[in-house]
Amino acid sequence: MRIEAVDFFYLAMPEITTDADGSQDALLVRVRAGEQGAAYEGWGECEASPLTSIAAFVAPMSHGICRPVGASVLGQAIDGPADIARIAALVEHDSMDLLQAAHTWSGVEMALWDLLGKVRGEPVWRLIGYQRAYPKTPYASLLFGPTPQDTLSRAKDAVARGFRAAKFGWADFGAGELARDVDQLAAAREGLGPEALLLVDVGQIWVEDVERAALRLPALEEFGATWLEEPFLASAYEAYGALSPRSTKVKLAGGEGAHNFHMARHLIDYGGIGYVQIDCGRIGGIGPAKRVADYAAPRGVTYVNHTFTSHLALSASLQPYAGLEAHRICEYPAAPRALCIDMTNNHLRPDANGEIMLTETPGLGIGIDLAAIRRYLVETEIKVGGQTLYATPAL
Amino acid sequence: MRIEAVDFFYLAMPEITTDADGSQDALLVRVRAGEQGAAYEGWGECEASPLTSIAAFVAPMSHGICRPVGASVLGQAIDGPADIARIAALVEHDSMDLLQAAHTWSGVEMALWDLLGKVRGEPVWRLIGYQRAYPKTPYASLLFGPTPQDTLSRAKDAVARGFRAAKFGWADFGAGELARDVDQLAAAREGLGPEALLLVDVGQIWVEDVERAALRLPALEEFGATWLEEPFLASAYEAYGALSPRSTKVKLAGGEGAHNFHMARHLIDYGGIGYVQIDCGRIGGIGPAKRVADYAAPRGVTYVNHTFTSHLALSASLQPYAGLEAHRICEYPAAPRALCIDMTNNHLRPDANGEIMLTETPGLGIGIDLAAIRRYLVETEIKVGGQTLYATPAL
Repeated sequence: MRIEAVDFFYLAMPEITTDADGSQDALLVRVRAGEQGAAYEGWGECEASPLTSIAAFVAPMSHGICRPVGASVLGQAIDGPADIARIAALVEHDSMDLLQAAHTWSGVEMALWDLLGKVRGEPVWRLIGYQRAYPKTPYASLLFGPTPQDTLSRAKDAVARGFRAAKFGWADFGAGELARDVDQLAAAREGLGPEALLLVDVGQIWVEDVERAALRLPALEEFGATWLEEPFLASAYEAYGALSPRSTKVKLAGGEGAHNFHMARHLIDYGGIGYVQIDCGRIGGIGPAKRVADYAAPRGVTYVNHTFTSHLALSASLQPYAGLEAHRICEYPAAPRALCIDMTNNHLRPDANGEIMLTETPGLGIGIDLAAIRRYLVETEIKVGGQTLYATPAL
Repeated sequence: MRIEAVDFFYLAMPEITTDADGSQDALLVRVRAGEQGAAYEGWGECEASPLTSIAAFVAPMSHGICRPVGASVLGQAIDGPADIARIAALVEHDSMDLLQAAHTWSGVEMALWDLLGKVRGEPVWRLIGYQRAYPKTPYASLLFGPTPQDTLSRAKDAVARGFRAAKFGWADFGAGELARDVDQLAAAREGLGPEALLLVDVGQIWVEDVERAALRLPALEEFGATWLEEPFLASAYEAYGALSPRSTKVKLAGGEGAHNFHMARHLIDYGGIGYVQIDCGRIGGIGPAKRVADYAAPRGVTYVNHTFTSHLALSASLQPYAGLEAHRICEYPAAPRALCIDMTNNHLRPDANGEIMLTETPGLGIGIDLAAIRRYLVETEIKVGGQTLYATPAL
């Protein structure tokens, strides 16, 4: 089969706020391939800044190694996983100087796996080599409240909704006085009770400052945090490497910013993280994410998905470690905006044990609700030199 | 002063080829700032894929840490170098999830230095802390010819034009039989004569394959190559680190892909490179590039500029190591397309010694030829949700 069309749909909530909440917009990708009358369709999703990722697909070539992503994808043969790897290598080389290419390609790559799974009648996790899919324990991704009292009720609410783990983050945690952070951690633990996992995400707040991070370690230990996520810039491996040996009980977590396999590997090798968090919408899709899982597992590093948008992206994010039984924690957008629920026909809901699991449904196993998508569609047009390079396609 | 306007001009040759030649298009940035009647203007240039970098400046916000670059720049105070660093940190944080942001910001950052230099009547190299600018020895950036005979004449031609160093690369060097590569190296050395520096750039051809790279080391040594550039993917530090101790005479070079300070530092610390090549149009501008120079010099690593477009970009690329007397080699586009010569009023031409030097002219010291720019301007328009987010501005 040949890849006949790649269509991008920019979706957004009517209002976008400065909340660190990635479910406010989405860039959905539809790939179509066919041969001799048969036609298949796959869906994927790119992470963040839809306009920029569309531009990287359609931009005029700057030179031989700054070609748009589309040039490496359209018209290519797609008959099996090896083709996805081949096209990925082509994008990596021919779009070497186009920084955004990895994000754009990520959504296309997911869609290609979805399509291949549908062609073969297999779930993606089987296509990438797993025999079965194991249940995962979703954690609620939450923001710290404006006050410890708010944090306490958010934690209680998560437990009441059946979550056995919750991640708190942002809301200036780490930016001010230590005492304020200690109060927030105490409130989160109190609200969660003694059993539930407490995860803490500080969103690179300390840049490269190891001592400011170390100052919070005793409180993180005291309130039993499982991990401390992104204390530093995604690329500040030295800072991670300096902090990780000082934090034996609370492991460091990071990796969501990785836009290729190597960046994730470096956080493991040089940064000493205990949890590697991969966003399939950024790292180049499911293939390189699986490579990270293969690298992490034998080194005692736990793989965790990173995802904050729809259940299509959620499903994609679970595939790379679906078959790793011991890697149990998974990110789960607990309170997404309506867009990210409405856009799919089905959802990965926690069962009675509070666990979610990928199914045997072919591809990514998530249906797209076309009617819902139309409601959120953001009409977009890009013209260069008198030519329309992109216009929102028909659904 | 406040930053009042940031305007992008997408320029291109009438025809763009797949040559690995970055001078075929350019994204010029004009920044205007003023207060109480006074108005200043600075110019910079982003590296590669103009459309994508424009999109990253104007894209609608996705969430709090995926804001467009413009949101961190427009309206900001700009009174001194500390303001540039402050805005850089803002971009780094608020556009954390927007991959292309570093490339977009790079051109804006250069323009801010140019503007500040004009305000203070100082060249940028002085503003960033150097007492004087030292001469640099430009090397001609050339592609290997289709045959060794072509390579031989290109090398002779470079010497005849006064170059004392030449870099050959691409054209499938490293992709085929060893014997072919040996012939190419022999031809390059023969054409250059025994004195001129021979630099070799293989453009990531061996991906992560250390042995294929090692196979070429004896020939590189035999023909006296000064460096072997980008044998592997920009992020494959392990491969660099495995090859560098095996290559004592021919040093490894890399870094052009670095889109932040850390990536360049890692090539030094983990990769063991001997030459760090920084593109100011990608790394976030002159500030982080200077930080790389400060890091490299005491570690015995030589800083080299990476640049392949106009003399505005060339001037910007020289500033970060202008004051490092011993760091002498500089990249110099020897045969750029007409666009990249026409777009500036003045040029950094080699003197009788074959050397170039930055001057005392305030800012980046390069004037923009507005009439010439108009001839190459690519009309561009981006509309999102019925709103025009970008249209080629008036010159």
